[in-house]
Amino acid sequence: MSGDRFYKYRFENDYSELAHPDVLNALSAAGTSQFGSYGLDEYSIRAGDLIRRRIDNPAAEVHFVSGGTMANLVVLSSILRPHEAVIAPGGGHIFVHETGAIEATGHKICTARGVNGKILPDEIEAIVSEHTDEHMVVPRVVYISQASEAGTVYTKTELTEISRCCRNNGLYLFLDGARIGAAINSGACDLSLADTAGLTDVFYIGGTKNGALFGEAVVICNESLKADFRHLMKQRGALLAKGAVIGLQFEALFSDGLFDRLAKHACAMARKLADGFSSAGYDLHYPMEANMVFPVLPSGVAKKLHDLYSFHDWEYLGDLTAVRIVASWATPEYAVDDLLADLADYT
Amino acid sequence: MSGDRFYKYRFENDYSELAHPDVLNALSAAGTSQFGSYGLDEYSIRAGDLIRRRIDNPAAEVHFVSGGTMANLVVLSSILRPHEAVIAPGGGHIFVHETGAIEATGHKICTARGVNGKILPDEIEAIVSEHTDEHMVVPRVVYISQASEAGTVYTKTELTEISRCCRNNGLYLFLDGARIGAAINSGACDLSLADTAGLTDVFYIGGTKNGALFGEAVVICNESLKADFRHLMKQRGALLAKGAVIGLQFEALFSDGLFDRLAKHACAMARKLADGFSSAGYDLHYPMEANMVFPVLPSGVAKKLHDLYSFHDWEYLGDLTAVRIVASWATPEYAVDDLLADLADYT
Amino acid sequence: MSGDRFYKYRFENDYSELAHPDVLNALSAAGTSQFGSYGLDEYSIRAGDLIRRRIDNPAAEVHFVSGGTMANLVVLSSILRPHEAVIAPGGGHIFVHETGAIEATGHKICTARGVNGKILPDEIEAIVSEHTDEHMVVPRVVYISQASEAGTVYTKTELTEISRCCRNNGLYLFLDGARIGAAINSGACDLSLADTAGLTDVFYIGGTKNGALFGEAVVICNESLKADFRHLMKQRGALLAKGAVIGLQFEALFSDGLFDRLAKHACAMARKLADGFSSAGYDLHYPMEANMVFPVLPSGVAKKLHDLYSFHDWEYLGDLTAVRIVASWATPEYAVDDLLADLADYT
Amino acid sequence: MSGDRFYKYRFENDYSELAHPDVLNALSAAGTSQFGSYGLDEYSIRAGDLIRRRIDNPAAEVHFVSGGTMANLVVLSSILRPHEAVIAPGGGHIFVHETGAIEATGHKICTARGVNGKILPDEIEAIVSEHTDEHMVVPRVVYISQASEAGTVYTKTELTEISRCCRNNGLYLFLDGARIGAAINSGACDLSLADTAGLTDVFYIGGTKNGALFGEAVVICNESLKADFRHLMKQRGALLAKGAVIGLQFEALFSDGLFDRLAKHACAMARKLADGFSSAGYDLHYPMEANMVFPVLPSGVAKKLHDLYSFHDWEYLGDLTAVRIVASWATPEYAVDDLLADLADYT
Repeated sequence: MSGDRFYKYRFENDYSELAHPDVLNALSAAGTSQFGSYGLDEYSIRAGDLIRRRIDNPAAEVHFVSGGTMANLVVLSSILRPHEAVIAPGGGHIFVHETGAIEATGHKICTARGVNGKILPDEIEAIVSEHTDEHMVVPRVVYISQASEAGTVYTKTELTEISRCCRNNGLYLFLDGARIGAAINSGACDLSLADTAGLTDVFYIGGTKNGALFGEAVVICNESLKADFRHLMKQRGALLAKGAVIGLQFEALFSDGLFDRLAKHACAMARKLADGFSSAGYDLHYPMEANMVFPVLPSGVAKKLHDLYSFHDWEYLGDLTAVRIVASWATPEYAVDDLLADLADYT
Repeated sequence: MSGDRFYKYRFENDYSELAHPDVLNALSAAGTSQFGSYGLDEYSIRAGDLIRRRIDNPAAEVHFVSGGTMANLVVLSSILRPHEAVIAPGGGHIFVHETGAIEATGHKICTARGVNGKILPDEIEAIVSEHTDEHMVVPRVVYISQASEAGTVYTKTELTEISRCCRNNGLYLFLDGARIGAAINSGACDLSLADTAGLTDVFYIGGTKNGALFGEAVVICNESLKADFRHLMKQRGALLAKGAVIGLQFEALFSDGLFDRLAKHACAMARKLADGFSSAGYDLHYPMEANMVFPVLPSGVAKKLHDLYSFHDWEYLGDLTAVRIVASWATPEYAVDDLLADLADYT
Repeated sequence: MSGDRFYKYRFENDYSELAHPDVLNALSAAGTSQFGSYGLDEYSIRAGDLIRRRIDNPAAEVHFVSGGTMANLVVLSSILRPHEAVIAPGGGHIFVHETGAIEATGHKICTARGVNGKILPDEIEAIVSEHTDEHMVVPRVVYISQASEAGTVYTKTELTEISRCCRNNGLYLFLDGARIGAAINSGACDLSLADTAGLTDVFYIGGTKNGALFGEAVVICNESLKADFRHLMKQRGALLAKGAVIGLQFEALFSDGLFDRLAKHACAMARKLADGFSSAGYDLHYPMEANMVFPVLPSGVAKKLHDLYSFHDWEYLGDLTAVRIVASWATPEYAVDDLLADLADYT
Repeated sequence: MSGDRFYKYRFENDYSELAHPDVLNALSAAGTSQFGSYGLDEYSIRAGDLIRRRIDNPAAEVHFVSGGTMANLVVLSSILRPHEAVIAPGGGHIFVHETGAIEATGHKICTARGVNGKILPDEIEAIVSEHTDEHMVVPRVVYISQASEAGTVYTKTELTEISRCCRNNGLYLFLDGARIGAAINSGACDLSLADTAGLTDVFYIGGTKNGALFGEAVVICNESLKADFRHLMKQRGALLAKGAVIGLQFEALFSDGLFDRLAKHACAMARKLADGFSSAGYDLHYPMEANMVFPVLPSGVAKKLHDLYSFHDWEYLGDLTAVRIVASWATPEYAVDDLLADLADYT
């Protein structure tokens, strides 16, 4: 159980700390004032308004759910008829790391190989054209992650092409934005939240990995996907009795630029880590474009670092190991410096 | 949208306030220290230990989930094979107010009429004996709520009989304890948490309705129901990345008697309300045994109260309306006094 | 196991004999000629055309499935979004006798009490008006059986009112016609197949209980319910590789009036039984309107008849037992005479 | 619609003809004698006994269902808990050609590449060892087809190794025997039905593709998989009211060696086709081991053959096309001769 183990620092993910103090203070400040239940409260309403303003879409629906798997399963099962399927990159979170959550709602995931964690329009079209008759599922949604599982980002050109491909093929586009904060604040990505809203049918903005205790904001842009979404949330256990708890946190994140400030910090720490690994002569398994770095290390070096820091091995490549180092809104610069110094010692 | 409306006080439920200050302080105190993910953190471990000690069952498994519907659907779908069903009282939360959450996992709910919101062993046996062949589902679990939806409580004698009935009929017993704090602290109930654990196969302890931001502690007592429960949680979106957020709250609730203290307050306020309604000459639709009062008022009186206080109409009975008034850990005594004073004015 | 037991005659259902000789001959005549697979064959096409002509709706889609439970689950799951539900009479086949088949596709069944097995428009409206918010399912389809489980039939007036009620409330109307042959040929019903098609959104015509080896013809009248129905059939295992087997049988049933001739015989035998029971002084539990008779017998008399004939006890009423006696297309008149003679002996 | 098109002969599958005359005669001979419903009839009981004797396992349970997709989905959903998954070869029928039937019951399919359509024990172990924690599904069943989708067969050595691998890894082994008749009668396979029963936990014997109108016999060998199987069948619409229709056909198939005789004929015709293609200088895409031949033809030749015969293109390989030619119990030798003669003309 990882609770017992000491580490100089945990680089294993971006959810190892509770929440940013501004978020916690907002919760404490609310005290015991009363509010409406199940997300029909003033905090959630204001948070929704802040997001609608930010994406410049006053008609968008904003719903708050507790986590990413929940967002994925509620959104996808709300769209698909029983015989319809979702297209995703093969390493996509929904395919590998959600314990069959989408299949548990009855739907198949059709996967494409992708490049650096990102799916290509040609792959989408190939999948559509293979599914020709009633003996096969009908792909109806494309699921992508921004940033991707490989820590890369879709550019405006790339997302525009995928969006067009979806429209041409009668597919909805759903963007998992668990790390969209890091993506749009990384410098590698020329897409704003508003651009994202304009190019997708539904997406979500991750709070869990960017300073909140927990919570994701599902944003529904396409009118035809709005009907009865709260019913679907309730059915899946996604409608918190005190929905205000998430609304209040998103209000804090989207006031005074906190959301972007936290993401920028995570990206800066990742950049420093990436530069450090490169300077030390190590290749990166994927381009560093958000808040995750995938250096390829001699397995002996990786092993020594594991004694001091927590992080995941990503792929074994003969004598080398590609590892995943994640920086977060809370990562202190000294932790980065420590890791790079220890790395220098081992090299 | 109820967010906009002013009320002197909301008596509509026991989740209209964020959380008790001790809970919020515990969150703030955790600061940015790092912890293991997905519930494998020191807070959750300590909270589990506190609960295991409290129920005197060191082998019990404790899992934290975000809310009651989630607890219900994960637990039930983890137990049942596809053709198996759950027996519940007709007014049970899972049958009426969870948007078909259990059916969405593939299972039928067989309902009994019950008395004052509580199911009777005879009813359970009748349902079992009606389901005789392969053209009908096989009942496998009995679901009850403590306190019930009618605000009543099962006594030790009653729960023991239901428990025995379940064992005799090859049924598991699952107790929804969203309001178990109020139940065991009401004075009307002679069951402790330890008694409850001893008489059920799995139950949960509600935090959402007793001082936490959110969160329920699922306690699995029966060895045969423990396998792979975390897998099932993950699949349904119940495994929070920062599981520590709930663990930490339950650690606060089960330290220094906070959990019981809060519940006792809710019950005391409900008792004062019940006595007030009775003194004013109104019948109670159900016996007042936890933190909910169901006075039967002339509909005109109910209507006037609705202008000042939020609460639900429960049942229309000719010119009378049975209403539901809920007291919580946060209900100030002055709000109770105000309501009773206004009632006196209307009578 | 009922395979071993001798009976003078089985009155337990209308599927105790294989198939009418004309149906078996049609199968034999097809020999080893080749045909297209999965229902895309000339027999199925001709059978579909015969049905479309009969209901006077050239645009109707006709699909053949193997049985009633399959028809019910494919049709309902094709229509409903996850949070939507079906309204049915409480004794409806889908609620009691299909082992949770509809719930297994994720959907709740909302039941009404009904009168003589038939649901009333007022009951439908009451259910709709109770389901007001996102904590409850959304009723979207009404399911009725013609003839009903009680052997009664909806008249044109009754079906027209239900149909109007559905349209006014945004509900689809799905009619289970496992016994529609008996219903429309009973004399008690003034509805033709064409009338039925005009008043429902989708219905099916039962072959299993009216002379076929097996098979039901699902008829989709409402344009918006036609999309991808074959995909949905395939997914549920309803698309037989040799769909021609069912098409061919329906071609035989709908040529030369066989379908109606067989149903008329069943109804005539039921009428004779009903008259016999009445003459002998027994009440009927439900009006006799199709091919099922529900006489109320002293339990001792029922017991003696059970020694010689197979039939189901329907309801125990003190010292009396309402039993269900079913006549089929194959019931010989001598069997009816025998039973009535034996009854006379016991009385 | 393929119903309209003329072909000299259909080689597209092994279910283009209705049924063998002996099967049809058995149906006709049953006349209007009465029998028990839902598979509890003398025909089904005798057919089950014939199969139990054939596999030398008196305790095996035998259930008759209408088709292969149905067999697959009922069996798999009866075994798996919600978070459990099935391992299958990537080209397996359940993964590609059943419109997500398994996912519709809530379960993920984990695929392996396989060799010539057959999965390898190493691949099974690799999949098991990748699924390590609660963020991933738990593989619990291995699904294989005998013969495989590539028309190849598992030998006794191969099946024994897979069986041992399953036991070592806590996996059940389920064998789809839609074409097991052809497999065991092909000469390429040294496994009997009894061997198959001994090495698997559950398998089925295909009737649809070997002379029956329709129907598969599910054989459950493992005691722990027998509970409530008829409930599960009923729930999925697999329990035919006149189950006797399938039992009677299997009784005919397993009397007087009909089942094997028909399969042998199909294999002999496939052998003649394979030899003909080889003699004409064409490679076979997979070894010819049952009743399907996959010659690799110049695409122009394939196109010309398509004008006269129906068959499927399997894979496009530059200027070549691997096609699938299927022989059945009904394929007349002259049709094989015709095709080979036409082939000679085109070459």
